[in-house]
Amino acid sequence: MPHITLNSQEPGIRGLLRYRPETGRPISELTEVLLRGPSTLTRGERELIAAHVSALNECRYCTASHSATAAAQLPGGMALVEQVRADADGAPVSAKLKGLLAITAAVQRSGRDVTDDLVTQARAAGATDLEIHDTVLIAAAFCMMNRYVDGLATIAPEDPAVYAAGAQRLISQGYLPPSSEPGAQGD
Amino acid sequence: MPHITLNSQEPGIRGLLRYRPETGRPISELTEVLLRGPSTLTRGERELIAAHVSALNECRYCTASHSATAAAQLPGGMALVEQVRADADGAPVSAKLKGLLAITAAVQRSGRDVTDDLVTQARAAGATDLEIHDTVLIAAAFCMMNRYVDGLATIAPEDPAVYAAGAQRLISQGYLPPSSEPGAQGD
Repeated sequence: MPHITLNSQEPGIRGLLRYRPETGRPISELTEVLLRGPSTLTRGERELIAAHVSALNECRYCTASHSATAAAQLPGGMALVEQVRADADGAPVSAKLKGLLAITAAVQRSGRDVTDDLVTQARAAGATDLEIHDTVLIAAAFCMMNRYVDGLATIAPEDPAVYAAGAQRLISQGYLPPSSEPGAQGD
Repeated sequence: MPHITLNSQEPGIRGLLRYRPETGRPISELTEVLLRGPSTLTRGERELIAAHVSALNECRYCTASHSATAAAQLPGGMALVEQVRADADGAPVSAKLKGLLAITAAVQRSGRDVTDDLVTQARAAGATDLEIHDTVLIAAAFCMMNRYVDGLATIAPEDPAVYAAGAQRLISQGYLPPSSEPGAQGD
């Protein structure tokens, strides 16, 4: 049961964004830019970074949600997501993505763990400054989301079908609340 | 030296917000709502929560910046901020604020460390649901900011006068970039 009385039955971060729209709107906008805005990283790669850091933070809701959304947008599907979560360095992803996933894991521990060596390795594998920036910020942002979701003890459904359906909704509609999208249909 | 080439000499998060305004804008908006928007917590109390979590994350720039901004808005000044950072439970603050600072410290470790007991204690000392929500989110948001600032190895000036001047600017102008404030004068 959540630590505070929310104004909906929505699980995970969705109930929190609805409870406090003044903070929910900028959080949704940040997520939309980072995970779906213009980027040389694919949406699947960015969702994978979000899933990886959420798993390291042991946030069940965010891990399930972003794993499902990554899986639906990556050729390797959920098998690849699970390989990355189990052993990012041994997973069949590009050297560049491996470098970015190593930065992701460092950020989860502490910003000070992102060493010159990790950045040099990612850059040698082809990562640009903007890709390194966005990886650090995606990982950092999910260190916020994970703590927000678990710190208020929100509900995380057990059924994987809930997250698979959520992934399809996120892929088609994005992270912005319907009221931010002119012409969107209700909620 | 920062890990990536920024487009200004601005220290800490300021250089990052300028480098990537698409993400900088929602981050600034979130910070403005949380630390300066309408609330039953004073601005000084909210800056103290930000300073406390930044110190626990050992983020030198954010700790110095938000300690200075808290000190300038709290009757106890920097002496009180330093007492809280050294021993929040023994510091001369209200029982409610002690309860919220205990939640802050839990969030810094993990969202899962915010126990029913911590929430019950804060509520018994007078904290409302919204105050508990905002405390969790301020602490979580600074777990993002701290990792963003240190994960990209931004510059943290040594001189306390820099942070004292920054505090005065934040108190008078807030966290939104000048372009977001109609009528603001340049930058």
